[in-house]
Amino acid sequence: MTATLQSSPLGASRTRAPSRIIIEGVTPQIDAGRFPIKRSVGESVVVGADVFAEGHDILRVQLRFRFEGESWAERPMTALGNDRWEARFDVDRLGRYEYTIEAWVDRFSTWRDEISKKSAAGQDIGSELLEGAELIRKAAERAEGHATQWLSDRAEAIRSPGDQVPRTALALDPQLAELMERYDDRVGGTSIEKVLGVVVDPPLARFGAWYEMFPRSASQEPGRHGTFRDVEARLPYIASMGFDVLYLPPIHPIGHSFRKGPNNTLTAGPDDPGSPWAIGSQEGGHMSIHPELGTIGDFDRLVAAADARGIKIALDIAFQCSPDHPYVREHPEWFRHRPDGTIKYAENPPKKYQDIYPLEFDGPDWQGLWEELRDVFLFWVDHGVTVFRVDNPHTKPFRFWDWCIAEVKERCPEAIFLSEAFTRPKMMKRLAKGGFTQSYTYFTWRNTKDDLTEYLTELTTTECREYMRPNFFANTPDILHEYLQTGGPAAFKTRLILAATLTSAYGIYGPPFEQCIGTPLRPGSEEYLDTEKFQIRHWNLNAPGNLSELIGSVNRIRKEHVALQSDWNLRFHSVDNEKLLAYSKATPDRSDVILVVVNLDPYNTQSGWIGLSLDELGVFDGDTLMVHDLLTDARYQWRGTHNFVMLDPHRIPAHVFHVTR
Amino acid sequence: MTATLQSSPLGASRTRAPSRIIIEGVTPQIDAGRFPIKRSVGESVVVGADVFAEGHDILRVQLRFRFEGESWAERPMTALGNDRWEARFDVDRLGRYEYTIEAWVDRFSTWRDEISKKSAAGQDIGSELLEGAELIRKAAERAEGHATQWLSDRAEAIRSPGDQVPRTALALDPQLAELMERYDDRVGGTSIEKVLGVVVDPPLARFGAWYEMFPRSASQEPGRHGTFRDVEARLPYIASMGFDVLYLPPIHPIGHSFRKGPNNTLTAGPDDPGSPWAIGSQEGGHMSIHPELGTIGDFDRLVAAADARGIKIALDIAFQCSPDHPYVREHPEWFRHRPDGTIKYAENPPKKYQDIYPLEFDGPDWQGLWEELRDVFLFWVDHGVTVFRVDNPHTKPFRFWDWCIAEVKERCPEAIFLSEAFTRPKMMKRLAKGGFTQSYTYFTWRNTKDDLTEYLTELTTTECREYMRPNFFANTPDILHEYLQTGGPAAFKTRLILAATLTSAYGIYGPPFEQCIGTPLRPGSEEYLDTEKFQIRHWNLNAPGNLSELIGSVNRIRKEHVALQSDWNLRFHSVDNEKLLAYSKATPDRSDVILVVVNLDPYNTQSGWIGLSLDELGVFDGDTLMVHDLLTDARYQWRGTHNFVMLDPHRIPAHVFHVTR
Repeated sequence: MTATLQSSPLGASRTRAPSRIIIEGVTPQIDAGRFPIKRSVGESVVVGADVFAEGHDILRVQLRFRFEGESWAERPMTALGNDRWEARFDVDRLGRYEYTIEAWVDRFSTWRDEISKKSAAGQDIGSELLEGAELIRKAAERAEGHATQWLSDRAEAIRSPGDQVPRTALALDPQLAELMERYDDRVGGTSIEKVLGVVVDPPLARFGAWYEMFPRSASQEPGRHGTFRDVEARLPYIASMGFDVLYLPPIHPIGHSFRKGPNNTLTAGPDDPGSPWAIGSQEGGHMSIHPELGTIGDFDRLVAAADARGIKIALDIAFQCSPDHPYVREHPEWFRHRPDGTIKYAENPPKKYQDIYPLEFDGPDWQGLWEELRDVFLFWVDHGVTVFRVDNPHTKPFRFWDWCIAEVKERCPEAIFLSEAFTRPKMMKRLAKGGFTQSYTYFTWRNTKDDLTEYLTELTTTECREYMRPNFFANTPDILHEYLQTGGPAAFKTRLILAATLTSAYGIYGPPFEQCIGTPLRPGSEEYLDTEKFQIRHWNLNAPGNLSELIGSVNRIRKEHVALQSDWNLRFHSVDNEKLLAYSKATPDRSDVILVVVNLDPYNTQSGWIGLSLDELGVFDGDTLMVHDLLTDARYQWRGTHNFVMLDPHRIPAHVFHVTR
Repeated sequence: MTATLQSSPLGASRTRAPSRIIIEGVTPQIDAGRFPIKRSVGESVVVGADVFAEGHDILRVQLRFRFEGESWAERPMTALGNDRWEARFDVDRLGRYEYTIEAWVDRFSTWRDEISKKSAAGQDIGSELLEGAELIRKAAERAEGHATQWLSDRAEAIRSPGDQVPRTALALDPQLAELMERYDDRVGGTSIEKVLGVVVDPPLARFGAWYEMFPRSASQEPGRHGTFRDVEARLPYIASMGFDVLYLPPIHPIGHSFRKGPNNTLTAGPDDPGSPWAIGSQEGGHMSIHPELGTIGDFDRLVAAADARGIKIALDIAFQCSPDHPYVREHPEWFRHRPDGTIKYAENPPKKYQDIYPLEFDGPDWQGLWEELRDVFLFWVDHGVTVFRVDNPHTKPFRFWDWCIAEVKERCPEAIFLSEAFTRPKMMKRLAKGGFTQSYTYFTWRNTKDDLTEYLTELTTTECREYMRPNFFANTPDILHEYLQTGGPAAFKTRLILAATLTSAYGIYGPPFEQCIGTPLRPGSEEYLDTEKFQIRHWNLNAPGNLSELIGSVNRIRKEHVALQSDWNLRFHSVDNEKLLAYSKATPDRSDVILVVVNLDPYNTQSGWIGLSLDELGVFDGDTLMVHDLLTDARYQWRGTHNFVMLDPHRIPAHVFHVTR
């Protein structure tokens, strides 16, 4: 019983009691503030917290926020009931914001409330008026300008003996309350332990349509290797489809050792171009251009030409090396060596990938390697590239990405990193937490109504939405799903419309997509036959059945309808047919409401009754709805919640309705 | 591009790359480790975490745990799939335990797996054998005793040139694997940032029946003030009902100023005894005994006599003072003063409580006050009291309790603190997080099937169960629920059985409870008429209808059936009648299974079909069940999942079945 507070957790030198106020349950925050949340320019952050103290004192709770390194702004939080408080702030600049919460006892308001109740009950408040006068006098000391004298006079008037009625009126004067709030005393207040962060990305991080193509297949002359000039010539076609991002597989020199032949065969013929992911040759590595594509000047020209059409060039960054990469000679310490002195190639025993040397991220010169890899991004930033698709990030250390992305975004806050992590769920999410701006997802493998509903509900309503932005690719050079292999053009249309309207960022790999190419390497494989990964292809964009017009319509609808430019507003509606999926998106003010109904069956016409949740739809219970199909221009008048739809996949497998009153 | 890692978050002096391993999603933990979880002696802690790294390396994940201040023990965690790992440890001592998780790449197992696959595929593994030999040689350097030589020899044999077949066999030898595991190299590993804590309380914190009574009403002679000797005489009665804790309202000297009369009237007559919660008079304060109850010696005798019967005496600690409390003279700085020099009494404007002076917890001598209040607990600990019911803790600062309870439990780890915080949910939970061993709950106000099911599901299945142990009081001197006012004896029986079987800690306030006293102060009030809070009562324990026999049966069943001694094993079963509630509790090994069916309607016989979840019940799909009603000794044979029950509340409103095969 002899211990004193000096030996206690309260701390030795503390002269003031710990704050009486508790702040907990702060949202949003990721892993107790370990990672920042993500927003894009123009969005807002709604901050909530449980805040309370013992007793009946009135609390003031302030949201504090700032652009990193600047001064704090404040906004009062509102009590929602059940000790929950909320406020929001907008983020309108690229970079990092911070937010925190501060709370204290509002002694003046507590006192004001007390005398108001007591005087209403006819009680003597002589002593209370003296207490209040003292609070006001102290505020006068903190005040500035003419408020000092005003408060001082008011304290004197309230303190003076005499009739309590006029003194009480002076005490309850709203102007006094306003000044007392301005010069409040926060002594005894508290704030949350850890300042929380927001990474603010460009709007393109939230909303954009991506088009992937192999530059080497861009030539219009059969037999000739495509070039950046050919890609430039392809820009009008891509722009006509309304894409925002043109993403190119690796453009670097391709290795010769163990070069793969067509369809991933182990031996390449002399004219086989190899895989663009086998990066590096005597002609250079990750900061060089494959000579057959052109020069760095040609590349700069392409970036500028795309930019003029509002298209960003995205590069595929794959941190791995062919045995011919200059790093192998110049930095052997960046690779793992075997006891026989050779460098360890990639393998997944007993499979061997002798054309690829993985980098050793925790080797003796890991710092040199990490800085070099960051500088790869910065090199391309200097050439006007701010959008990066990162190849297989889940095969490199998570903490490398945490560091690298932060470094790049510090210098280039508009940089966008798309994580190609087709891996286990927790790894996919960890990469997103650690800084990736967008993530490839399991969308390609979600083809049924139940699967799509469950997956989208997870992505758009659970905590992961604070840090993981999905980018729904309908196909990739690595993934030709069975649904596309067997469903014909209807399947491509369905997956296009799903990708483009379920999420605000989506992409396709063309021209195979718009040409509805669905032939796999072999039955049961998700690889394309004669994939561009290992050979040059020539595509006839004028072949019949090209979906470019539909794609153009869909992307135009996306641009014209703000409701389709966010993910969090997705709501599902019931349909009494498991082949029909219905969902809507609305702007917060309901000025734009889109309702999509998709036939997931690529073979048969399907029909059913939609049961609209009008609340979710954001319209007007019981009213007549005008639904205007933006794809076919058909218009219908709907009444009530239940309406009939029928969709023939061989014509168009979906309605994209603009809903109005 | 000139920045180096020296200026980066990786830190200047780091010579090794950050660990490749991620540990996250650790459970259990409260508010990111800010508060310890709670267990009682003999329970275990199941620890889970998401652990993963990039690539295919085999990870080792260890749970580490220790009694605070001692050395760490370890246990391997098991991979459950989807990157989730789990292990458990038991806590068998009072006090604080700590746990953490460590993970590293198991380089030897990874290598062993690699050569196993490669040699099975007939590949040359000459270089791999050299790599492994090097791992073994390094392990030999870390090894002790004869393992050093053994590993060294084995490395040599595996390294030696010659036929790979026998060398591979040596490499795959299980004995080698075992030694390599023992002398593993954890370089590159990681652990969670914050060591997590467990407070281990005595089993009574988890399982116990509480009986509250007013000592001053314990006299058998009408008109005489009850004494501790009278309470001693009451012990056989209390023991016959099977209670574990006898809890007494404040036993300290009662103030005279503004003393309250019967039924909380503002003026007391000269013989009115006042409220025991108006603590302190010229005869002493929180460390003194109200003279009419006896001496401190009498109290010590009562504690010993109760102890001899296995009953713990619990004291009610109410940190507030009557105007006559010695603190008012000796420590005026512990109270808040008004400008007129008087001490501020308790109020909730416009209501005044002039008989109570609240303590000012953040006044100028807050440290002196906090230490004094801690010493109040320690004073009674020195007199054999380890169970405390704390009055209105939510009207004192949360951080005072965080500190005070930790201080007391450091000196007396068996101390139990029951929080009487009938307040808002988040405040109730915060007190539990901060250290209270048990909590009063909203049980008294949960009387319907839906309300009970929802509330118990929250208490027993959500995160709060890690820190908040409910103690279900069926009534208190402050709460006589309408259900008891109107439902007659059946209501008392129902609420007794619910409290005693839904949660493993429960209590009643007697003798009013067992005498089925249900008369309120006035209609609509939850106060008792002629409450003992303000006057002395005399109870005829032999009056007809006393429930002591039923209470004794219920408490005996609780002691005989381990299944009823935990909360987390509660499972609900469906009944097709909203007045019937069915639930079960089983031991983990299913050696004890209890099924309870309660008629919530105190007026009418109710019947219905129970739909048993046999999985939840923990028995044997499709079998015949023997159900033995432990209250009535009736036995039934049940088949299948659906069985009929009928309960007449005027006889006994519940079945408490022991279920066997």
